[in-house]
Amino acid sequence: MRRASYAGMNCSVAQTLEVVGDPWTLLIVRDAFFGFARFDQFIERLGIPRNTLTSRLQTLVDHGVFERRRYQERPDRFEYVLTDKGRALHPVIVAMLRWGDDWSGLPEPPVTLLDAETGAELDPIYVDRSSGRPLDEIKVERRFN
Amino acid sequence: MRRASYAGMNCSVAQTLEVVGDPWTLLIVRDAFFGFARFDQFIERLGIPRNTLTSRLQTLVDHGVFERRRYQERPDRFEYVLTDKGRALHPVIVAMLRWGDDWSGLPEPPVTLLDAETGAELDPIYVDRSSGRPLDEIKVERRFN
Repeated sequence: MRRASYAGMNCSVAQTLEVVGDPWTLLIVRDAFFGFARFDQFIERLGIPRNTLTSRLQTLVDHGVFERRRYQERPDRFEYVLTDKGRALHPVIVAMLRWGDDWSGLPEPPVTLLDAETGAELDPIYVDRSSGRPLDEIKVERRFN
Repeated sequence: MRRASYAGMNCSVAQTLEVVGDPWTLLIVRDAFFGFARFDQFIERLGIPRNTLTSRLQTLVDHGVFERRRYQERPDRFEYVLTDKGRALHPVIVAMLRWGDDWSGLPEPPVTLLDAETGAELDPIYVDRSSGRPLDEIKVERRFN
């Protein structure tokens, strides 16, 4: 991990990368949104080395992104469930999903997001909450506080 | 780089991580959105080792995220400008910024996004384009195509 170098930056992007700046970590979080929760499911889906997965899950639990819950005794088995803080990462995954859909050169989007109640396809875009204007139509300026 | 392991996944998140799954890379892209473009600016802002920066910039140029432009001759100096593909990463940076604002424990958001024309503070949220409903109020399902 290359954390030490940017952990001290007074920047919310850097702070986010401190927690989920590792590709495996983001793929684990992606799979959590896909409904997977168990060690062996992550192993099977990601082909991630077991010790790497153990370490990444521990980091995510330490940062409060996952809660570790026992679902079986003797032998004890655990699953990893997104907390509120973890679920709040949904826009990060959605943003990456959309960029990959548009720019990675995959022949078609591998995953379509649907409204579970209506079945309608979702087309997520960032808008400004108060004006409702799409963010990509706004010239954005940054104020450093 | 740990690319080889997930480059082949048929997943837009994994494909995105293939390009920008490295923390330094995302911080360079962040700084590009902040208006920085030159090698020495990235060095100064990020404290990134020079050879690491050279390699990350080359990767971003190779992937078409940055265009490399000469802005001075003798000695030749170059700047790195976001292409359309690079500018399309804005939602990824915004999503990380917002999560860091909300969850990283920084005392206040280091950066506020403003509408450059009106000066109004922006509060970016994901909505579904056609219904306008906030994504976090929708139960999202995934269809694997």
